[in-house]
Amino acid sequence: MRPRFHTARGWTALAAAALVAVIPAAGAAAAAPEVSEATEECLSCHAVATPGIVADWKASRHAATTPMAALERPALERRVSADQVPPGLRMTVVGCAECHTANPDAHADTFDHNGYRVHVVVTPADCAACHPEERAQYDQNIMSHAYGNLHANPVYHNLVETTDGVQVVTEEGTRLESPDDLTLADSCFSCHGTEVKVAGTRTVETDLGEMDFPILTGWPNQGVGRVNPDGTLGACTSCHPRHGFSIEVARKPYTCGQCHKGPDVPAYKVYQVSKHGNLFASVGKEWNFSAVPWVVGRDFTAPTCATCHASLVVTDEGEVVARRSHRMNDRIGWRIFGLVYAHAHPKSPDTTVIRNRAGLPLPTELTGEPAAAFLIDKDEQARRRAAMQAVCRACHSRGWVEGHYARFDRAIETTNAMTLAATRILLRAWDEGAAKGLEQKDSIFNEAIEKMWVEQWLFYGNSVRFAAAMGGADYGVFANGRWVQAKNLQAMKDWLDFKLKKHKGGWLW
Amino acid sequence: MRPRFHTARGWTALAAAALVAVIPAAGAAAAAPEVSEATEECLSCHAVATPGIVADWKASRHAATTPMAALERPALERRVSADQVPPGLRMTVVGCAECHTANPDAHADTFDHNGYRVHVVVTPADCAACHPEERAQYDQNIMSHAYGNLHANPVYHNLVETTDGVQVVTEEGTRLESPDDLTLADSCFSCHGTEVKVAGTRTVETDLGEMDFPILTGWPNQGVGRVNPDGTLGACTSCHPRHGFSIEVARKPYTCGQCHKGPDVPAYKVYQVSKHGNLFASVGKEWNFSAVPWVVGRDFTAPTCATCHASLVVTDEGEVVARRSHRMNDRIGWRIFGLVYAHAHPKSPDTTVIRNRAGLPLPTELTGEPAAAFLIDKDEQARRRAAMQAVCRACHSRGWVEGHYARFDRAIETTNAMTLAATRILLRAWDEGAAKGLEQKDSIFNEAIEKMWVEQWLFYGNSVRFAAAMGGADYGVFANGRWVQAKNLQAMKDWLDFKLKKHKGGWLW
Amino acid sequence: MRPRFHTARGWTALAAAALVAVIPAAGAAAAAPEVSEATEECLSCHAVATPGIVADWKASRHAATTPMAALERPALERRVSADQVPPGLRMTVVGCAECHTANPDAHADTFDHNGYRVHVVVTPADCAACHPEERAQYDQNIMSHAYGNLHANPVYHNLVETTDGVQVVTEEGTRLESPDDLTLADSCFSCHGTEVKVAGTRTVETDLGEMDFPILTGWPNQGVGRVNPDGTLGACTSCHPRHGFSIEVARKPYTCGQCHKGPDVPAYKVYQVSKHGNLFASVGKEWNFSAVPWVVGRDFTAPTCATCHASLVVTDEGEVVARRSHRMNDRIGWRIFGLVYAHAHPKSPDTTVIRNRAGLPLPTELTGEPAAAFLIDKDEQARRRAAMQAVCRACHSRGWVEGHYARFDRAIETTNAMTLAATRILLRAWDEGAAKGLEQKDSIFNEAIEKMWVEQWLFYGNSVRFAAAMGGADYGVFANGRWVQAKNLQAMKDWLDFKLKKHKGGWLW
Repeated sequence: MRPRFHTARGWTALAAAALVAVIPAAGAAAAAPEVSEATEECLSCHAVATPGIVADWKASRHAATTPMAALERPALERRVSADQVPPGLRMTVVGCAECHTANPDAHADTFDHNGYRVHVVVTPADCAACHPEERAQYDQNIMSHAYGNLHANPVYHNLVETTDGVQVVTEEGTRLESPDDLTLADSCFSCHGTEVKVAGTRTVETDLGEMDFPILTGWPNQGVGRVNPDGTLGACTSCHPRHGFSIEVARKPYTCGQCHKGPDVPAYKVYQVSKHGNLFASVGKEWNFSAVPWVVGRDFTAPTCATCHASLVVTDEGEVVARRSHRMNDRIGWRIFGLVYAHAHPKSPDTTVIRNRAGLPLPTELTGEPAAAFLIDKDEQARRRAAMQAVCRACHSRGWVEGHYARFDRAIETTNAMTLAATRILLRAWDEGAAKGLEQKDSIFNEAIEKMWVEQWLFYGNSVRFAAAMGGADYGVFANGRWVQAKNLQAMKDWLDFKLKKHKGGWLW
Repeated sequence: MRPRFHTARGWTALAAAALVAVIPAAGAAAAAPEVSEATEECLSCHAVATPGIVADWKASRHAATTPMAALERPALERRVSADQVPPGLRMTVVGCAECHTANPDAHADTFDHNGYRVHVVVTPADCAACHPEERAQYDQNIMSHAYGNLHANPVYHNLVETTDGVQVVTEEGTRLESPDDLTLADSCFSCHGTEVKVAGTRTVETDLGEMDFPILTGWPNQGVGRVNPDGTLGACTSCHPRHGFSIEVARKPYTCGQCHKGPDVPAYKVYQVSKHGNLFASVGKEWNFSAVPWVVGRDFTAPTCATCHASLVVTDEGEVVARRSHRMNDRIGWRIFGLVYAHAHPKSPDTTVIRNRAGLPLPTELTGEPAAAFLIDKDEQARRRAAMQAVCRACHSRGWVEGHYARFDRAIETTNAMTLAATRILLRAWDEGAAKGLEQKDSIFNEAIEKMWVEQWLFYGNSVRFAAAMGGADYGVFANGRWVQAKNLQAMKDWLDFKLKKHKGGWLW
Repeated sequence: MRPRFHTARGWTALAAAALVAVIPAAGAAAAAPEVSEATEECLSCHAVATPGIVADWKASRHAATTPMAALERPALERRVSADQVPPGLRMTVVGCAECHTANPDAHADTFDHNGYRVHVVVTPADCAACHPEERAQYDQNIMSHAYGNLHANPVYHNLVETTDGVQVVTEEGTRLESPDDLTLADSCFSCHGTEVKVAGTRTVETDLGEMDFPILTGWPNQGVGRVNPDGTLGACTSCHPRHGFSIEVARKPYTCGQCHKGPDVPAYKVYQVSKHGNLFASVGKEWNFSAVPWVVGRDFTAPTCATCHASLVVTDEGEVVARRSHRMNDRIGWRIFGLVYAHAHPKSPDTTVIRNRAGLPLPTELTGEPAAAFLIDKDEQARRRAAMQAVCRACHSRGWVEGHYARFDRAIETTNAMTLAATRILLRAWDEGAAKGLEQKDSIFNEAIEKMWVEQWLFYGNSVRFAAAMGGADYGVFANGRWVQAKNLQAMKDWLDFKLKKHKGGWLW
């Protein structure tokens, strides 16, 4: 808890001076910045209707400063990227009305609410009034396209269908029912983002009488690639959650861990067992997560996700170690996540445009060769690696960093090789008729051996690579790493043998 | 570390005033409340014998206040629910003797100890001197019956036997040896609670000479349904651990996570990847976990387990959002935990009374239809849901909350359907003689396909439902959710095919 | 963040006294201790070259005190164990040069660097100038031999090979390629330690002109059994990470959790769901992790890993509860980790000397009987248990502690029995020709049933035992415990049946 001070009028100047000296942050409070009339009106009801978020906002930086004051900060300390903000927004704090009534004509979810044209879903375009660079960068971030990249890619979409659908078992066999929208919003699209649409209006009896509200489908959602009612992509609240919009929260690994913790993308789990994660957990309580710029060694002594992938990091002398970027892949040369093999990062954040030689919307062939025309080249990979290594080298020597990266590169090679080994078993299963695949125009994800194949790259290959990238030790071995990769391969072989009824002495392999 | 103050006599009033202003919580210390003579005597030895718990108690609220002072607090701020407490307990702090010598005749574990009739196991009946409402509510809480609900239900008991027993492999086959009491106490009953019984007395050579102590079986244990030597059920120390008995600890999710973290009941894991869990981890260090009542938005900005399930929550204006309850299922309409299907919550905390149409002590048929007579009806479900939604709506709009619940309801339907699909495969395995089940009067948990079936609902169905209930994203998909649910179903089908030796072109399905 | 104080000259003595009283730790700062000339020179460049670690060091105890001052502390408060330190190290703080230029002739990685003979890898021998007891104890710690114990034991080495190697699938079958050094350093040896060797010198263009640096293989690494360029074993930075070398970090469970979190050794995961781990997470923020000695009840109210296994623990009255030891197994009578069965702890930290009756370098026979000559006897087991129980009994009564240990002992018996059951199935598979084992001079880890057998003890047996040792509840049941142990055994049986094509009515068992 922050200390709270009760005013004690009548103290002598001496005692007051002592107090100020003890807690310099309190200081002599300047006049509080003004709240707009519209926001005052919002607050008058919502302090009762939704007291939690009102209190959250009141404790936020948005409630304590004006865009004009933010614009006046020195360049490195600025938290806004706009050169100017619209006149109506300059002199009052950033409150309810400033965001929820912005760009009303662009918002399909705009509705009349106590005389204001309010919308429910605040979008990157709304935030861009003050933060245009972040919005533009995020638009180029592969995360902003997470909905379409999953939904509009027929291969990945089929993975979703076979994962989230309901199976019905009858006398004749099994039947897959496609997942409905509620299920999809609760599963894959929870992180990838839903499409939020207006499905009509309804009248609700509230404490303040009857009110009309839009009916939204795909709501609530804070997925990174949310398709908003104004046509924009993304939700700033994925990482800067409502209504504090705090930089501290976004810089802590728990935020990334919301979506990057499962066996498919175990970044947070790997971080937890890394030396960096240990230091964050052990002594991070003494770090300053709100400082802009973020001073390495002074504000923190080990990186979080944000340090390496997004934040403006400087030295004590003000030298820039890394520039702020909301295109999170700016310092990432390889896409280690796979689907199916690790590969050079895609050029476009919209990955539905990719076609491999076989005509599939995949960044590699099923046997691993890259669809190079759609991926960044070696020079761009090198540039991104150099940008990342600049962060490493704020603490580590060149030899250290190079030693680390040599292992990382090798892990990409070996995991791709182990994926290829699994793929060869799957291809044989298809050839021998033990399972139905591409030639039979069947799903490549619905049979037992296909699901084993998926785990080979989606779980085990990814775990090894994330562990190699971030120093995750056991996550590359027993905790869903090389051990399971090797075991799964044996299980795939045996499954095929059982299925083909090869007997002792006559095994397929 | 809390600041520590060394008395510096001779200061002027001025400096003293400054000090008080800086740390208001310290205040001008009132005369410390009195410790009873009996407790003083306990402390005189135990400060040496068990210094850790003595120090823990000394820092506790129990050591710093008297029941009389606690009774005088305004209604919403009261931490005791008794109208009056017995005269002998009113004017001294709640120390060793106050609890460990209460109700001596009711306690089978009472023994003579330095002239006092002391008992080892402090029970809900002992705590009820000051906290009778909490005790009465907890008695109606399904958790208080966790021992009997597991041990006295023959179906569930067989799950325990087949899980915890030791298998012996011989030339002839395998044999299951029933688990002994030590094993049971170390496994299932660790959380469910043991039966603590007095098995005799023994004499021990201590630093203070020979002493007699009762021999307790099933000890130590702090399981939620512990059967105590006075016949009561439960252990307040499950959540308010010894000897701080802190409300802060009970309100933090780590406490619930002790038992609700495994694949069977992954509530804490889901919380960790939820937005609520992220906020708790990121900014919870600034929350006030000790305030009574607990003010939403001021004391905390996102809920922990306790907020939604137990605590007295009020707004800044003192309006009650949710009443305190130690019947943890007061705001829960569905029992999503299953065994076997998710179903309306049982009426009685003693679930051994339940019988389905097939005569089994299960809340549903094996094919999912509810044993409705033993479960709460739709009206009661709606009442409980409304109580929970009142908490949600302290921060979220009505549309948000309804959107969330629509997904949750759908997740119950789809996971029950996926359990039914698995059950149909199991029933066919029994029919075809590939495994032995109910008709053969064999365990339904001991064969490979039966264990796969158990995981379908106990691990994967539960994971999806907990994820849907609390916004757990990946826990509903790849981390033991829908992905594994679908994969497990394929594996069950293939196992049955392998077992029945169906060949290519002649598969069972 | 620690409070920061801005000097406010001109205060009256009175206010200053008040301030000191509020934050006694700040005190009237003594003159800062001197930094050596050599270290000043290091800092002058490295504050720019690697600002992060310089800042980390500046905030450390090493930067704030001299060995001479450290030597003058009362016995219980001493953090150095040397009687004397070399004259040249006494009067200046422990900076860059003090460690990185120590013992230059012993270091194969020594190189000329701006006129100094610097080495990269600081080793236990370097730290021993001030901390000789810790170094000597750690040398006897089984962890210091973690590299050789894995690499030079042919059985364990084969486990590494079959886990980390790359499999190649061809028409003819599969082929295992041995893992390369980069892969090994990134996986098993990441925790066990690499062998760090000098492979030559290279010239690098730096901001300060051309410089020569040694080329190190096996670098970077902080594994517990690292083989250093001076021939010593271990890395103090495993637990006291660079460049703060903090006792706080070493005492927090996150440090141990870096390597002890996977399914093979889930100590940290078990701790998290234990009552102790709950208390650490809930109220540990108020504990003092830097105090020497560490006072039970005052500095902490529940143990971390270090409390039980390493730290000097005393009571408020200064009575020693447990002596400091860097031989981490000093309070451990059983080696519950297995490989293959849990057994009495090995006598020598070098376990490659062990031979069982079958001639294998294993602490037990494949059927569980101990290779007793190489293991500590019952008396030594009892001594170690008593040392551990002294820590337990700082808070818990004798009956409590004995009840706990009775369950722990039983868990060792039952898990060993379940490992034996799995081994009997494996032996039968070898006998029947369903897999190739010792007699066929084949790997005992490379086939599917062998990998299932490994998980029986390495994952499930270990999980049950760690859970029993530390009160881990569900980790002994559903979370990789008894449930999976029982399920895996059924799966092994069925695999063998499928492989041997036994049909309905004619199963092997």
